[in-house]
Amino acid sequence: MPVLLSLSLICFWSDFSALDNAKLVDLTHAFSEKTLYWPTAKGFQLNEDFKGTTDNGFYYEANSFSAAEHGGTHLDAPIHFAADTWTCDQIPIQKLMGTAVVIDVRKQCKGNRDYQVQIGDFKNWEKQHGQMPKDAIVLLRTGNGKHWPDAEKYLGTAERGPQAVPKLHFPGLHPEAAAWLVAERHIDAIGLDTPSIDYGQSQLFETHQILFAANIPAFENVANLDQLPPKGAYIIALPMKIQAGSGGPLRIIALLP
Amino acid sequence: MPVLLSLSLICFWSDFSALDNAKLVDLTHAFSEKTLYWPTAKGFQLNEDFKGTTDNGFYYEANSFSAAEHGGTHLDAPIHFAADTWTCDQIPIQKLMGTAVVIDVRKQCKGNRDYQVQIGDFKNWEKQHGQMPKDAIVLLRTGNGKHWPDAEKYLGTAERGPQAVPKLHFPGLHPEAAAWLVAERHIDAIGLDTPSIDYGQSQLFETHQILFAANIPAFENVANLDQLPPKGAYIIALPMKIQAGSGGPLRIIALLP
Repeated sequence: MPVLLSLSLICFWSDFSALDNAKLVDLTHAFSEKTLYWPTAKGFQLNEDFKGTTDNGFYYEANSFSAAEHGGTHLDAPIHFAADTWTCDQIPIQKLMGTAVVIDVRKQCKGNRDYQVQIGDFKNWEKQHGQMPKDAIVLLRTGNGKHWPDAEKYLGTAERGPQAVPKLHFPGLHPEAAAWLVAERHIDAIGLDTPSIDYGQSQLFETHQILFAANIPAFENVANLDQLPPKGAYIIALPMKIQAGSGGPLRIIALLP
Repeated sequence: MPVLLSLSLICFWSDFSALDNAKLVDLTHAFSEKTLYWPTAKGFQLNEDFKGTTDNGFYYEANSFSAAEHGGTHLDAPIHFAADTWTCDQIPIQKLMGTAVVIDVRKQCKGNRDYQVQIGDFKNWEKQHGQMPKDAIVLLRTGNGKHWPDAEKYLGTAERGPQAVPKLHFPGLHPEAAAWLVAERHIDAIGLDTPSIDYGQSQLFETHQILFAANIPAFENVANLDQLPPKGAYIIALPMKIQAGSGGPLRIIALLP
């Protein structure tokens, strides 16, 4: 194995062009007026500035847009829930690239929209696939993604405003499991197919607090997790570089083995 | 060479983790109130929605933002200047990844802020480095990037509004050179360290029209081109996925050989 790995490293350095032939999966929902946001957050709006033929005779389109940072497929920077940690633009890119560990918890979430992913779910994955690699990007496949962009089914409520927040129901990561990942596994980042790494009924957002205090960013509303194998895919997740941002729109892709 | 390439491909498939050790360069300017936009376009604005300790005792930050699509380090989708071509979200990701061909035209641009990159500039590069590879991402290093974010020096004027447009002065790609790239070289995309792939004094934006009719997207206001070698780097450029967008914020990175 060490020999194979060394060979692989040597080969790789010699030629990035192999990347041109990698099979890619886009794990990103497009931003539109249908994009889902937290009930209290401003949604995505595209304003047409020009569309058509100009006085000079050529075709032209251009738009402006506005949105909250935390909606659609997006990054949570650690500063979102932990003082003195990385803002959106400060996260080293290397932390946003890594081997995917895909934890399938659809069975656990079926019939329980408030499921919180447990340490046992990670241990079960490791029983089958070996210990998760260092610097992995852990992706939780709850099955919630198939409801996108149906607010009622995806968020638990289609209502908007503060009174809708207690009605949010979707799975997340249990704080104890977050603490285990921080203490026991050196991961780069974590993502899932729900609006938040804490489950919908969370009030203290402890999982956010635990991960972000350790400068581990989160990817939320990740798409197409059904197209990834449990191991072997490679994630590249590049957020809009918002200076001092607490997060922002994320383009996240997977290279398939 | 074919044997080496095959070996490289085989090795590569077996292990993406070599990517974890690649040296990376971020070619992206961060978005802030200093970000440069076209004189007629709406600039980037970040609005603080919350920052501090919540009533529940935990730290929290969140913002909203707004901007025109075409400012800062951004993607021009082909639809920006050519009807019936790809919108921002429709561009295949594979077209946004490729081997970098870095054309250094700083000497030609020195003392001529209206320089337009010529076919001869590409031929000179090829004399030194061989024909540019298929599916390359061509990057024009005009030297203009060192002026970011000084509007007067970078754009040619710090004025805003329609009356400022005739005062724009910065280098670009000559339409004949654009046509040559389309007809003679199969490139994936093109980028540069100026606000526009057409030079500042352009009125018809012919280079945009020629490239975009061929579905070749452009990356504008690219940063840190001084950190790339003339050949051998690999570009990954992931735009915010704006549905039906004519472009948008781009996070663009290079893997160094």
